[in-house]
Amino acid sequence: MVNSIALIGGTHGNETSGIQLIRNWQDFGLPTRFDELNVSLNIANQAAIDANVRFIDEDLNRQFTFERLATPNNAKEALLAQTLNQKFGPKGESNTDFVIDIHNTTSAMGATLIILEADEFHISLARYVKHQMPEANILLEDEKPYLEHAYLCTTGKRGVMIEVGGQPQGVLREDVYLLTEAMAEAVLDFCVAFNNGTLATVQLPECEVFRLGENITFPLDEAGKRTAMIHHALQDKDFEPLLPGMPIFRTFDGHDITWQGESTTYPHFINEAAYFKLDVAFATAQRIVL
Amino acid sequence: MVNSIALIGGTHGNETSGIQLIRNWQDFGLPTRFDELNVSLNIANQAAIDANVRFIDEDLNRQFTFERLATPNNAKEALLAQTLNQKFGPKGESNTDFVIDIHNTTSAMGATLIILEADEFHISLARYVKHQMPEANILLEDEKPYLEHAYLCTTGKRGVMIEVGGQPQGVLREDVYLLTEAMAEAVLDFCVAFNNGTLATVQLPECEVFRLGENITFPLDEAGKRTAMIHHALQDKDFEPLLPGMPIFRTFDGHDITWQGESTTYPHFINEAAYFKLDVAFATAQRIVL
Repeated sequence: MVNSIALIGGTHGNETSGIQLIRNWQDFGLPTRFDELNVSLNIANQAAIDANVRFIDEDLNRQFTFERLATPNNAKEALLAQTLNQKFGPKGESNTDFVIDIHNTTSAMGATLIILEADEFHISLARYVKHQMPEANILLEDEKPYLEHAYLCTTGKRGVMIEVGGQPQGVLREDVYLLTEAMAEAVLDFCVAFNNGTLATVQLPECEVFRLGENITFPLDEAGKRTAMIHHALQDKDFEPLLPGMPIFRTFDGHDITWQGESTTYPHFINEAAYFKLDVAFATAQRIVL
Repeated sequence: MVNSIALIGGTHGNETSGIQLIRNWQDFGLPTRFDELNVSLNIANQAAIDANVRFIDEDLNRQFTFERLATPNNAKEALLAQTLNQKFGPKGESNTDFVIDIHNTTSAMGATLIILEADEFHISLARYVKHQMPEANILLEDEKPYLEHAYLCTTGKRGVMIEVGGQPQGVLREDVYLLTEAMAEAVLDFCVAFNNGTLATVQLPECEVFRLGENITFPLDEAGKRTAMIHHALQDKDFEPLLPGMPIFRTFDGHDITWQGESTTYPHFINEAAYFKLDVAFATAQRIVL
């Protein structure tokens, strides 16, 4: 049973669609078909929202490893993480069955559900969401065990993220808002079906999932300065197949740099603003079927 | 004659395309056809670039009124404005013939040239740029005299802004970069033709110009909280005709708010991130011919 569900917006203060969805459901109520669920509506980082920034001191969504939670740190978000871990966790022995954390991205990733495990629950969830919302993308980040992730959603017994784009930081687009709402409702619809035991009666078809590979960084010169930008042929092509030899960067002196991987990959988080300081250009993924 | 030209990027620290164009022209040189021009390449607000924000304390591009320049103010950008006014101005008795300040926007405004006067020089410039670059938009902000604007570019004897979008803050898109470069080159091509006296020999056709009207704000409740978002039918429709009765906002409780103006207008800066704190939803414009 998924008895307690925490729905969270504003983990990053300039990601408006999740913040607005939480506020609207607080103001107008959840759709009545979710009345049987025990859903709490939460805003994670009000200070960052007020400042219209991703975070004040440190990225809140990178605070939730056991090690960081056990290490004294006076950064605003490190202190906030302690509070949130008590509220939604504590991580590892959580009082919350399911944490759903809502984000948006400047990348053209559409409505993406990020799952961190490929167990029976999450396979059913992925299939259910994809069945209800065929335009959705499912991204699987299982390169390490669930509890080793630093994400806020891992404070729950189970946790997922909703990631929708493209939307500039600090801007609310209706199309992104509606996709966010539709995906949040699909996840909650799954919870209703899971609790009612009606999932077993439905034969959910297998679904396409993108399994995270690695981060690809921008080419840099010796001083660490970027020498190229995302190629126009790659821009906005999140989750589309990238074949060896296809252009990925355009250098500032006018040359193309091509994809040198051994096989086709599925890039995502292409040109995401928040990863710009880390010089991350995009992430790769493998296409699998769950 | 346009003897001295200052080309400026990074007036806003998270508007990457102008910053990158300046850096690339510093690294690789201007196209040789501009050798006869006296062009300086400038980065305005390095501290804001380093912090990847629009500004540190105050908007630099709102500092350049005579009043503000004469008023002591310890904000980082107010102090910087004093320095830049000495460098490019001083405003009103400037040593720079032409200041070209490069910006980008999250709004889908394409390549837009913002002119502040409709005198013979700027009419010729607008026609020339539109002729060379038919996809360009010309925006005329002549609601007050040139020297009363607070823009950095008004430190020059003449000043214009290049404004290209849509591009999220802190992100560099190749399409936006190339439009920025093309428009900067078109403006410099005009300067060459103007100086050589070859403009008179060309019969430049009249061109469409959008004359700034007013800012339209989001609907707010009594607490000042927004009650609606930009309607999906308006999003990304910058400079397209908006007729009375067409939807402009979607309220969070699911209703449409329509345009109640008396006549057709041409909205722009639709959902611009930087105007979000001011609750500005978009600006109106009238379509005229120069």
